[in-house]
Amino acid sequence: MTETYDDSFVKELTRMSDDFDHWYTDVVRKAELADYTPVRGCMVIRPYGYGLWEGIQRAFDDMIKASGHENWYFPLLIPEELFLKEAEHVEGFTPEVAWVTEAGSHGKLDQRLAIRPTSETIIGTLMRRYVQSHRDLPKLTNQWCNVVRWEMRTRLFLRTAEFLWQEGHTFHADPAEAIQEVDRILEYYRVLAEDWCAMPVFAGLKTSSEKFPGAVHTKSIEALMRDGLTLQAGTSHYFGQNFSRAYDVSFANRANEREFCYTTSWGASTRLIGGLIMAHGDDSGLILPPKLAPVQVVVVPIYRDEEGRRAVQEFIAGWEPALRAGGIRLKVDWGDERPGNKYNYWELKGVPLRLNVGAREVAAGQVMAVDRLTREKRSFAVSGLAEELAGELRRFQAALFRRALDFRQANTVEVRRLAELVEHFSTRAGYVSAPWCGAAECEAQVKEATGGVKSSNYDPERPAEGECLVCGLPGRHQLNFARSY
Amino acid sequence: MTETYDDSFVKELTRMSDDFDHWYTDVVRKAELADYTPVRGCMVIRPYGYGLWEGIQRAFDDMIKASGHENWYFPLLIPEELFLKEAEHVEGFTPEVAWVTEAGSHGKLDQRLAIRPTSETIIGTLMRRYVQSHRDLPKLTNQWCNVVRWEMRTRLFLRTAEFLWQEGHTFHADPAEAIQEVDRILEYYRVLAEDWCAMPVFAGLKTSSEKFPGAVHTKSIEALMRDGLTLQAGTSHYFGQNFSRAYDVSFANRANEREFCYTTSWGASTRLIGGLIMAHGDDSGLILPPKLAPVQVVVVPIYRDEEGRRAVQEFIAGWEPALRAGGIRLKVDWGDERPGNKYNYWELKGVPLRLNVGAREVAAGQVMAVDRLTREKRSFAVSGLAEELAGELRRFQAALFRRALDFRQANTVEVRRLAELVEHFSTRAGYVSAPWCGAAECEAQVKEATGGVKSSNYDPERPAEGECLVCGLPGRHQLNFARSY
Repeated sequence: MTETYDDSFVKELTRMSDDFDHWYTDVVRKAELADYTPVRGCMVIRPYGYGLWEGIQRAFDDMIKASGHENWYFPLLIPEELFLKEAEHVEGFTPEVAWVTEAGSHGKLDQRLAIRPTSETIIGTLMRRYVQSHRDLPKLTNQWCNVVRWEMRTRLFLRTAEFLWQEGHTFHADPAEAIQEVDRILEYYRVLAEDWCAMPVFAGLKTSSEKFPGAVHTKSIEALMRDGLTLQAGTSHYFGQNFSRAYDVSFANRANEREFCYTTSWGASTRLIGGLIMAHGDDSGLILPPKLAPVQVVVVPIYRDEEGRRAVQEFIAGWEPALRAGGIRLKVDWGDERPGNKYNYWELKGVPLRLNVGAREVAAGQVMAVDRLTREKRSFAVSGLAEELAGELRRFQAALFRRALDFRQANTVEVRRLAELVEHFSTRAGYVSAPWCGAAECEAQVKEATGGVKSSNYDPERPAEGECLVCGLPGRHQLNFARSY
Repeated sequence: MTETYDDSFVKELTRMSDDFDHWYTDVVRKAELADYTPVRGCMVIRPYGYGLWEGIQRAFDDMIKASGHENWYFPLLIPEELFLKEAEHVEGFTPEVAWVTEAGSHGKLDQRLAIRPTSETIIGTLMRRYVQSHRDLPKLTNQWCNVVRWEMRTRLFLRTAEFLWQEGHTFHADPAEAIQEVDRILEYYRVLAEDWCAMPVFAGLKTSSEKFPGAVHTKSIEALMRDGLTLQAGTSHYFGQNFSRAYDVSFANRANEREFCYTTSWGASTRLIGGLIMAHGDDSGLILPPKLAPVQVVVVPIYRDEEGRRAVQEFIAGWEPALRAGGIRLKVDWGDERPGNKYNYWELKGVPLRLNVGAREVAAGQVMAVDRLTREKRSFAVSGLAEELAGELRRFQAALFRRALDFRQANTVEVRRLAELVEHFSTRAGYVSAPWCGAAECEAQVKEATGGVKSSNYDPERPAEGECLVCGLPGRHQLNFARSY
């Protein structure tokens, strides 16, 4: 499993500062995260990218299991008649549905089968059986799976016809409890984004125009990318009784009357990987948060001859096991390339710390660590190295988050009037926070006046600071606007 | 997440000894492992069943990662033209393929897309890019995913239109290395089946008639179910250059000449769950191997009044944390049912150890453990309970394997002539081992003479003990025959 790489490979990377979109696709492919395929709109996720996904899965799965959620697996294929019961939902998803109409030697099917674009409809259909009484509630289900949404434009990790995600679906006897569930999961998404991906987010409510088809309300986490666009990185929906009524999921309540369940759903996907790439990268490539990095520390041995190699090898063997035992994900690059090429390669791959180990280090009994973020060099004695490096990785994680937070603060402004907002987006990006009356018409006017700037979300606890930027009526909320992915 | 269950729920379980097939479906549904759905041939896997799958995934994923395999994710949908390049493969799978022909507002597609029944064709297509030189090899890829094979008859976990599995696909510069890979994975499957599922297997070669479409040779693990049928529980295939030639995956070898790769693939699926159910269950329900059981120890508190309940609760609180800290997967059943109903329920669910805890246990400072397999009761002092129970679980795992091995030994016979084999299968099941000349015609005659008994596999190292059971020519191998799932 040696990869061949040389100077040209890295030199050809488009600079982020020259062309962000091109940089993104370039870095995703050259850092071996993912690639386009001959299958329209579908990507292949390569091991380095899948390793990030495995880290995200583990982190989120631990959180939801600790709070009593259970993993299920529901069918990929949904018969058309089941799919069509909740009108808003159907309207929202039908344009993107891929349909199975034929099967092998059976020929044409009696009824088309949708490949799930999301699973509210099949889970509602099935959950009827498992919910009879209030004693069966809550049902806190989740599944890790693939979904298909036929997209016109595709972009690796961000918008592909097929993607991987988790979708949680919960059923409650009480609306307050369901609403609380939506908030609990939103908080898990915030933790996943901020503590694991080192990506600061605004967690808040979507406006009615931007909510999920069929939802009463949708909450989201929104992160700022380094090109100033916002990425919706996780959503949590409250459905009230909309889906339980459409799919007849009811329970006998404490008064022994039938009542429709109060339900939620929530999802986060491989899109998060696109997010952490665009939130942290630089002209040299990726910068990965240590808590998710498949390789946290890369060791580049430096030697001139066989004797030098043996000395370095022996030296590394003296402390490598302690690092691994300390839980550090380590790679020693014994490949044939020149050290300089290795430096570039592992910088492109965004490995947080690189250890250079040559004759000088062997003689001094220490290693030199180069920080991917600051490019600072520090030497560490090999005694206690595992603890030192673990500390460096923690500091790196915090610094990466701080850098992204500083970037967001520098790119968030408040305005009072629509004209100011339009002026802002004519030359700049980032978030604009403005007082808003709550009317969809005013939100639509912002979109029209700016050629597509949409609301991201708002903190429902925070009152508006002034009159609505569009109509001048009393403001209700401070709404965030941004160009978005 | 309390489940309601009562006496009738368990009493209605079909007895294994009365009707094995009905028992199987009954226990899968009543033990809440999986269920049928309104989607033709597709099942829903419920948390208790999915927990088994998560255990299997972890065990196998650890094995393959330790030997340098990497997880990828490849597209679900495969354009028809890519699917059609390896003739034998196409012939084998086409009858089972589900086709996407329409997508949302795009209407009819230019080309049909197959939902992957397996991924040799798309992985071959993509791997071309990543393999240039012998230095890029081996490529040891794996993916965890869903596949669809349109089946006429369906049976939960064993044969469903959609199932979950892992599929490994490896690319080598050398045929010997590829053949070794097939054997290495076969050994991992043996370990997964025997050490984790407690299910003894015959690991060996399939005959040419029974190999994978497109393979040079196929090896399998085969396990005996308690109705005497064999279950193919994992397969590992050597393809030579069949697929690499069809998909043009070549490399520059050491002599700098282009050479097609030598490839393998191997898969194990949620079928393993069906296997461990049918290898171990009894009239009362499931019996789960402790290493995979989602609940290893269930505690049933016994009390008459609130005061009694408090005493029991306090007593359990004294040692429960130590058990959890010791890595024991524990459930304390505080539900409202009578203890007798709880006993039946957790027996149905196959939990290895049940602890009864009432006033007597509180007074004596001990617990009474009931073994699901032997139904023996043993008392343990609460001091050192975690270690004692961990030991009991290890013994349970070994005893479960031993029981299945004894059953297989009692149900494996050797015969010399076809007439004896036919006679055997007219009244009995299990394995019949017989000398075989290697000819497909002789194998076909066995199938015809018995109304469908097929070869399972054979140990290529073991010489035949006599002349071919059918034609009387010199035997080459001792071939196993059995009725199969």
